[in-house]
Amino acid sequence: MLELLKNAKKAAGELANLSTKEKDKILGLWGKALWTNREEIIQANKKDLEYGEEIGLNPGLMDRLRLDEERIQGMIQGLNVVRALKDPIGSVDKMIETEDGLRIGKMNVPIGVIGIIYEARPNVTVDCAALTFKSGNALILRGGKEAIHSNKKLVDILQKTLTQEDLNKNFVQFIDDPTRESSKKLMEAVGYVDLLIPRGSASLIHACIDQAKVPVLQTGEGNCHVYIDASADLEMAWDIVENAKTQRIGVCNAVESILVHKNLAKEFLQGFQKIQEKHGIKVHGDQGTCEVLSAERAKEEDWGKEYLAMECSIKIVESLDEAITHINQYSTGHSEVIVTESYKNSQEFLKRVDSACVYVNASSRFTDGGQFGMGAEMGISTQKFHARGPVGLEELTSYKYIIYGNGQVRK
Amino acid sequence: MLELLKNAKKAAGELANLSTKEKDKILGLWGKALWTNREEIIQANKKDLEYGEEIGLNPGLMDRLRLDEERIQGMIQGLNVVRALKDPIGSVDKMIETEDGLRIGKMNVPIGVIGIIYEARPNVTVDCAALTFKSGNALILRGGKEAIHSNKKLVDILQKTLTQEDLNKNFVQFIDDPTRESSKKLMEAVGYVDLLIPRGSASLIHACIDQAKVPVLQTGEGNCHVYIDASADLEMAWDIVENAKTQRIGVCNAVESILVHKNLAKEFLQGFQKIQEKHGIKVHGDQGTCEVLSAERAKEEDWGKEYLAMECSIKIVESLDEAITHINQYSTGHSEVIVTESYKNSQEFLKRVDSACVYVNASSRFTDGGQFGMGAEMGISTQKFHARGPVGLEELTSYKYIIYGNGQVRK
Repeated sequence: MLELLKNAKKAAGELANLSTKEKDKILGLWGKALWTNREEIIQANKKDLEYGEEIGLNPGLMDRLRLDEERIQGMIQGLNVVRALKDPIGSVDKMIETEDGLRIGKMNVPIGVIGIIYEARPNVTVDCAALTFKSGNALILRGGKEAIHSNKKLVDILQKTLTQEDLNKNFVQFIDDPTRESSKKLMEAVGYVDLLIPRGSASLIHACIDQAKVPVLQTGEGNCHVYIDASADLEMAWDIVENAKTQRIGVCNAVESILVHKNLAKEFLQGFQKIQEKHGIKVHGDQGTCEVLSAERAKEEDWGKEYLAMECSIKIVESLDEAITHINQYSTGHSEVIVTESYKNSQEFLKRVDSACVYVNASSRFTDGGQFGMGAEMGISTQKFHARGPVGLEELTSYKYIIYGNGQVRK
Repeated sequence: MLELLKNAKKAAGELANLSTKEKDKILGLWGKALWTNREEIIQANKKDLEYGEEIGLNPGLMDRLRLDEERIQGMIQGLNVVRALKDPIGSVDKMIETEDGLRIGKMNVPIGVIGIIYEARPNVTVDCAALTFKSGNALILRGGKEAIHSNKKLVDILQKTLTQEDLNKNFVQFIDDPTRESSKKLMEAVGYVDLLIPRGSASLIHACIDQAKVPVLQTGEGNCHVYIDASADLEMAWDIVENAKTQRIGVCNAVESILVHKNLAKEFLQGFQKIQEKHGIKVHGDQGTCEVLSAERAKEEDWGKEYLAMECSIKIVESLDEAITHINQYSTGHSEVIVTESYKNSQEFLKRVDSACVYVNASSRFTDGGQFGMGAEMGISTQKFHARGPVGLEELTSYKYIIYGNGQVRK
C-alpha cells in the first residue's frame, strides 16, 4: 500500500506537467481500447454478476453492476465529453501589480492525488479516471468487492494504454483489496492523498467523515425540499413537484419533502392527490395534510429522511419564515426550491436558505454537472469547504500564486 | 459545550444576513470599545503576565503576550483595515443561461461557524473576530491558558458591544476552558464547526490534522527555499537571500534553505560569507558548501527543518531539475524563490514547483495577505484544499448556486 501511495505521488508530479494535447490523446485512446477489449470487459463483468447472484445482491445493485456493449459505449461517450471540455490547468485569471512592482497571479493547478472509495458501479471507474486525468490529478481507486473483476479489467486496459504511450501507468491505480483495512489506510494516508471522495451509500460517506485524516469531499445525500409559497402559480407548483418527486426516484436531487403555505394548502393538496394516485406516492404528512390526503402521520424523524423512493413528507407551514427555518434545520444542504410569484419572497428564500443549490420556480432535478454546463461531474458536494454543488473539472483543481519580480526585497 | 456550539450555529444563520453597513458599524464600535476599556484590558493582561513569569514562559512568548496602549491601538487599526475591505458576501460573479432558460450563478456566502485554536497571542482574538465577522462567519475561540484573562476580557468587550446594538453576542464566543478536552470537542464538532483553523506551533497544527473530524485549514509552517540559478544576477541573489533569511527570522515566510547551481556556487558562497558574518548565521551545508564557508555538515533531517532562527541549510545542486526535485521533496509547500536571468528556467520553476507561492527574482518575505492586496489575513495556508497561500476575507467564504426559473422541469 505504501508503495502504491508513493507511486501515486510521483505520478501526480508528472501528470501535472502533461500538456492538454497529451492528455486529450490518452482520453481518445482509452475510448478505443475499451471498445477493442469490450468482450474481455463483459467476461470479467460476468464473474461479478455471478457472485452478485450468489450473495443475493438486490435488483437495483445488480442492474448498476451489469455491463454490456451499450453501457461500454456510454463510458466511451463519457470519455469524449471530458475530452471536449476545457482543460482548467495552467490558467491565470488576472495578475495584479503591487506598489513594489511585483506582478502576482493565481494559477490553476491540480490538487495532486485523489482517492475514491466506491461500491458496485464499474462506470465510476472510467468516469473518475477521465475527470481526474484531464484535471491533472493522479487517481487511486478503491472499489467494492461486488465489482472487483470488472474494475480490475477496466483499470488494466487504462494502464496498458498509458504504458504503450510511454507514460506512467500509475496515473490511475486500483487497490486490489476490497477490505475495510484498505479503506482505512486510504483514509489515513496523510501526505499522500490530497483529497478523498466517497461515492456510494450514506453510511460509507459518514464512515469517511468520521475516520479520515485526509481531506474528504462529502457528496450525494439529498433531502431536497419544495416550498409552495402563498402566491405560487398552482399549475407550476404541481408540475415542479411531480417532476422533482417522480421523474427519477433513486437520485440525490429528487425532492423528498414538500412544504406548503397554509393559505393555499387545501387546494394544492387536492391537486397533488392526482399526482399521488398516478405514481403511488406514500406520504408522511402533518395533521393538516392527513385531513386532505391519504397519508401516514409524520414522525419527527420523517422530516430528515432521504427516501429515494415513491415516498415523501408534506407539511403545511404558517409562513415563508417557518419554511426557511424548517429547511435549514432538516435538509442535507443539497437542493431546495421555492415556487412563488412574489419577488420579495423569492429573494428572501435565495438569501436565507443555506444549501448548495437554491431554485426559484424550477425543478430540483436540474442539480447536475451536465445541466450546469460543466460537462461531467464527480458528484454533488453538500459541504461548504472547497467545493459546493456539482464537482467538475474546475472543482478538482487548486491554485498557486506565481509572482514575477525584478529583485524586490521586503522593507 | 454543546450549548455553545448550538449558539454558534444559530448566530451564524443570523450573521449571514447582516448587511455590510451593519457589520461595518460594529467593527467601528469594537474599536471604540477597546480604546475606552484599555485600562481593564491592560489589567487583565497583567494577570497573564504574572502567570507567565511564574511558569517561566520564554521571552519571545512573554513579548507576544504583552498588551499596552500601543498594541491596543494596533488591534484597533486592524479592525479599521478590515472595515475598509470590500465585503465579499452576496456577490455573484456572472450568471449563465442554460438551454432550458434557467439562469444560474454562484453567490458568495459565509462558511458558517469557524473555530480557532490558538496559543499565547491575545491579538489573534481581535484579528480573527474582525475577519470572521466581516465575512459573515460565527467564531468560536479556544485560546491557551497563558492568555486567558486577556482573551476573556477582549471577548467580553466585543460581546457587550453586540448586545448594546441588539445583536446576538454569540457571533463571537470564547471557550473558557483551556484544556485538551475542550480542543478535542471542538475538533470533533461535526455538524457545528464548518472549519477549524489552528494558529500556533507545528505540534498544535499536526494534532489538529491528526485528530479533527471537522475540516481543518493547515497554516503557517514554512521551510522556504531560494534557488540561485546558473544565470543569476549575483548582486540580486545576495540581496534577496539576505532579506529573506535575516529581515525577520521568526516568521513562516523567511527562507530556511538555499540551493545554488554548481557553476556559480563558489562565487555566490564567498559573497554570502559577508552576510553570514554580519548576521551570525549558522549554516548546515553539504560538502561543497563546507569547503567554502564555515558550516556544519548537514544531516538528512536538516533539509526539512524550519529553523525560525539565524540558521539555514545550503546545498550545491547540479541542475535546475535537481533544485526543483529537492524543493518538492523537502519544502512545506509555503514559498519558494528562483533567482535567474533565464526566461526558460523561470518558466520551468514556476510550473513545476508545487508550493503556495512561487517567486521569480523577489524575496519570499512578500507572502502575506497585506502585501498581496488582501488587507489582512488569518494565516498562510500550506494545503491545496479550499484555500492556498494567504487566507483573507474571500478565503473565508463558500458559495451557493442560485437558480432563477419560470417553471422548468427536467425532461
